[in-house]
This record gives sequence, C-alpha cells and structure tokens, in this order.
Amino acid sequence: MDLPMGFLFKGLNDDQLKEIDAVAEKLSMDKGQVICKEGSEAQALFILKTGAIELISKMDSIIEIPITMLRKPGEIFGSGVLVEPYAYALTARCASKGAFMRIEQSDLKNLIGMGRDLGCIIMTNLAQYYLKRLQENRKEIKIHLATLLKTFY
Amino acid sequence: MDLPMGFLFKGLNDDQLKEIDAVAEKLSMDKGQVICKEGSEAQALFILKTGAIELISKMDSIIEIPITMLRKPGEIFGSGVLVEPYAYALTARCASKGAFMRIEQSDLKNLIGMGRDLGCIIMTNLAQYYLKRLQENRKEIKIHLATLLKTFY
Repeated sequence: MDLPMGFLFKGLNDDQLKEIDAVAEKLSMDKGQVICKEGSEAQALFILKTGAIELISKMDSIIEIPITMLRKPGEIFGSGVLVEPYAYALTARCASKGAFMRIEQSDLKNLIGMGRDLGCIIMTNLAQYYLKRLQENRKEIKIHLATLLKTFY
Repeated sequence: MDLPMGFLFKGLNDDQLKEIDAVAEKLSMDKGQVICKEGSEAQALFILKTGAIELISKMDSIIEIPITMLRKPGEIFGSGVLVEPYAYALTARCASKGAFMRIEQSDLKNLIGMGRDLGCIIMTNLAQYYLKRLQENRKEIKIHLATLLKTFY
C-alpha cells in the first residue's frame, strides 16, 4: 500500500484504507512547485509522502505569510476539497523534493457517499484538525493583541 | 419539535431530526449566566433557541476577548463535545434572556455511532463551520500584521 498513515485516516480499518489507497495517485514534486493555489476551486486532496510542503497565504497579493511547514508523511493539504465551498484555503508549495498522493474529489465523494462509516471517521478527524488549528490561531491573535497593547499603552 | 434548525443539522432528514430532538433538553437562561467555560471538559452540546450568547476567550486570565455573538436560533456552542480532546474551546455567556437546547455527549455518541449517515452529515457540517471560522481568523491575523507593519515601518 502506498498510502502513508496520518491523522485523517485514524480509526479506519484495513479494508477502508485499501479502498482509499486504490484511488490515490502517487506523484513526485520538485522544490518550488505549487501543488494548489489559495482561493482556487479544489479538485483533489493531497497527502504528503516524502519531502516538505510549505503552506502560505498572501496578504494584499504581495506579501506571503508562512502558515506552516508539513514534513510528516501522512499530513494532508488541500482539505478544502472535502467541505463547501470546495476551495483551497491556502497555497501549497514544495519546499524540498519529494512525493505526495493525490485523490480526486469525485473519488472521495464516492467513497464517503457509499461508506458512511468511512465518511463519518474522516470528517470527524477533519473537524478535530480544524478545531486544533483554530485554537492555535486564537492563541496567535492573543499574542498580536498583547503586542499591540504593549505598543500603544 | 423543539429543535431549532441551524447549520449543524443541514442535510438531515425528518426522522434524523426527530431522533436528535428526542434527546435534546430545553432550558432557559438569564443574562450573565455562564453556560460553559473555556478549557473545561465538554459534557454537552448547546443549541441556541432564543436570546443571545456571547462567546469569549480569556487572555492572561484577566482580559476577556469577545469572539462572537450568537443571535440566530439554531446556532451552536460547546461543539468541542463532538471532537477530541472533548473540551470547551470558549466560554459561552448569556447576553440576553432566552432559551437553549442541551444534548448530552453520551446521547450524541449513541446517535452518531448507530446512525453513521447522521454522523457523517453532522461532522461534515461541523468541519465546514470550523474551516469558515479558521479563514475568518486568518483574515484577522492579517489585519493585525498589517497594523503592526504600519506601526513599526
């Protein structure tokens, strides 16, 4: 099986993992390559296999804000493909040569539509992941607020 | 049926909604009443029926940061009860007299465990909600960064 294990597939059984592996395409990537672009229509989910992926967001279409660096096999990007409005929330750019898996949206929808158990597990894992990111962001906002308070008062 | 419709239940059929309504308890709330506390173990999910709920987060255990105000019937709070580590991410305080529904974690787990279709729909709605909040927070961080850049340069 090519599929690397990560948080999104936690709790799935071997048969369910094989079903996902069967629709995942393994691709290589080169440093600097953009895999998906912030704001564009999401067409696939990506799973890191080897190498590193930089997640970035643009400010005023000029400044790039680094959001995080993915290095662990099994980490996902392009997860906007799983929820409405089906758009990529961030840009993913290859930071060091490696490989990733690509799963088309139509294949994901089929798997989740037919296997509601698989769907329930994946969507629970995704919600957990987003909540964690949300709490990290809230912490960051608090740090910014504290800096502003110190600057002005 | 007492259950107010909101984004979390979008896509559920009448039978599924009735199952949820059957385990939801209707409670009244008074201004200033704290319904759940940031960081504490999540025991129930809450759904706003009437009135308003203020969601807040503490900074340095002194300053209160207002996160949002819920006013629409069907809006939820205490959603940390649905995902690990099962803790309330924010404090919810009643901002104007009203009523809300309370669903115990054990009842939710039963419904989601037995009805994987219901579970898949609810968890997809929840993931979508968190992703939306996450993107709003990222926008807020960008505004803070822009303010800092203007202040220092």
